Amino acid sequence: MRILSGMRPTGRLHLGHLSVLENWLRLQAANECFFFVADWHALTTEYEKPQMIREFAREMVADWLAVGIDPEKSVVFIQSRVPHHAELHLIFSMFTPLSWLERVPTYKDQVRKLAELGKDITTYGFLGYPLLQAADILIYLAEGVPVGEDQLPHIELCREVARRFNFLYAPVFPEPQGILAEIKLVPGIDGQKMSKSYHNEIPLTASAEEIGRLVNRMVTDPARIHKDDPGHPEVCTVFKYHEIYNQVEVAEIEAACRAGRIGCVGCKKKLAAILDGVLGPVRERRAALVTRNGYIEEVLHAGCERARRVAGETLDRVRAALNM
Amino acid sequence: MRILSGMRPTGRLHLGHLSVLENWLRLQAANECFFFVADWHALTTEYEKPQMIREFAREMVADWLAVGIDPEKSVVFIQSRVPHHAELHLIFSMFTPLSWLERVPTYKDQVRKLAELGKDITTYGFLGYPLLQAADILIYLAEGVPVGEDQLPHIELCREVARRFNFLYAPVFPEPQGILAEIKLVPGIDGQKMSKSYHNEIPLTASAEEIGRLVNRMVTDPARIHKDDPGHPEVCTVFKYHEIYNQVEVAEIEAACRAGRIGCVGCKKKLAAILDGVLGPVRERRAALVTRNGYIEEVLHAGCERARRVAGETLDRVRAALNM
Repeated sequence: MRILSGMRPTGRLHLGHLSVLENWLRLQAANECFFFVADWHALTTEYEKPQMIREFAREMVADWLAVGIDPEKSVVFIQSRVPHHAELHLIFSMFTPLSWLERVPTYKDQVRKLAELGKDITTYGFLGYPLLQAADILIYLAEGVPVGEDQLPHIELCREVARRFNFLYAPVFPEPQGILAEIKLVPGIDGQKMSKSYHNEIPLTASAEEIGRLVNRMVTDPARIHKDDPGHPEVCTVFKYHEIYNQVEVAEIEAACRAGRIGCVGCKKKLAAILDGVLGPVRERRAALVTRNGYIEEVLHAGCERARRVAGETLDRVRAALNM
Repeated sequence: MRILSGMRPTGRLHLGHLSVLENWLRLQAANECFFFVADWHALTTEYEKPQMIREFAREMVADWLAVGIDPEKSVVFIQSRVPHHAELHLIFSMFTPLSWLERVPTYKDQVRKLAELGKDITTYGFLGYPLLQAADILIYLAEGVPVGEDQLPHIELCREVARRFNFLYAPVFPEPQGILAEIKLVPGIDGQKMSKSYHNEIPLTASAEEIGRLVNRMVTDPARIHKDDPGHPEVCTVFKYHEIYNQVEVAEIEAACRAGRIGCVGCKKKLAAILDGVLGPVRERRAALVTRNGYIEEVLHAGCERARRVAGETLDRVRAALNM
């Protein structure tokens, strides 16, 4: 199955992204995957300050490779270096009713959320975001797209666009399926959703010391004053992390916490070591990668080349279907 | 001054277009001109049946050259063969407020007009039409755009887009001026606006016989029954044509008509001969052009190449300004 997925380069990756990337690894093992840096999509929210997008893009690709994305097997590329996406998006725009875009549930939600953060994204480009996604997917004739539940309406739109093109002109496009991924929901160190904008994230590149510091700042059971007070793991962020990353010990830790047999300091030390066990190997592979002079650029050069070849073939079929 | 202008290939050109092309010739004499076939724009209204666009495009370019557009001097090209337009359009979309497009006066007008003709153009692409125009103009750093009065708001939008880009990123774009052209308003043979959709046009390629037939069908003064009844030139379509194309004789014809000294049949014969004098040389040059095997394609190949070179340079500056 041909799979497409991408990430917007709007900041450095964190532990929350790692579980998304682990899903990519599972997909990579059994499918033909296209993984792309969605830098044009990043412009929808970052258009006032796009200067960091390029650096975030490079860093992100280094992260992907460090986690195990294999550029020999998968196609790793940058959206803006395959202008075919823009051309297909423009062609799609000509037969896509405005109402299809206006009724995408994420549209008004996102506009409101970003307005609260002081960002005005009521732009023509942001309204067309799901249509650009449809072009991203369909230009590779991708059949599967890993998504979260909130993104399912975008896949539905993509399928509608494919159907309309096939109906109006010629049967060029498949109707891609959303693949609901099992992504671990990793909380931030304050217990909220992990996000750069909440300043509560554990960077993917965090050193052992940084991990220790961040774990120390994690919110635990506020009712627990003394080390031997009985704890309530269900309200403790540290415990949530043990549930995700320390399945071997989690039952024992829960019992010890409720019985007041393990203190928060000890429990956090355990967690810091576990997290370093998760991030350490990634960090090391990443360090090795970035010392290879020009390696990331080589990977991207080859990946963009492969992407352009496939995208070019699709565009030829699109132009033939339209007789243009 | 660098000038850009284009035409949508949605049908064969007629006498009304000739006066637009005569304006192009005047501009060509003193400026660096880019003339393009706006085939992506044609999709906004023709997306349900785009199959004729390609042929109309070739025919249109043959007409341009026959009229005197000089491909050595001016850059003659097809929009969809310069994908840079689509890329710049996409980038512009990211910082262009929806409201700028919604308030373009032609937008709701056109949607209504086409709905009356049974065409639904409430698409994402049609809303973005003036933004694609802005990309068409600015990708060549054009400073002047010949327009009709109704198109002035589009030029204003283009200037706003240029200003916003220059303000947000770097001063890349000029603020183009609309050049209000003196275009003769040639009526259709029924006295209404000349338009393919009214079936009242005189094709640019009409033969002498066809011109004669069409002129014979022209509406004259309905109060005039007998040849020697006094005529009312102010209500006569044939007279309007004499005013435009026969300035040498027009005063004489007016007097003779009012005095009942010339009949409609004779007056039409005169006009048919005059119009054949206008269209004949174009028709002959066109016939000579199309017998040169592959010539039109050669012209377009070279023109698209030149256009892509200039557009590519602009995009390099755009990407540098965004650091992408």
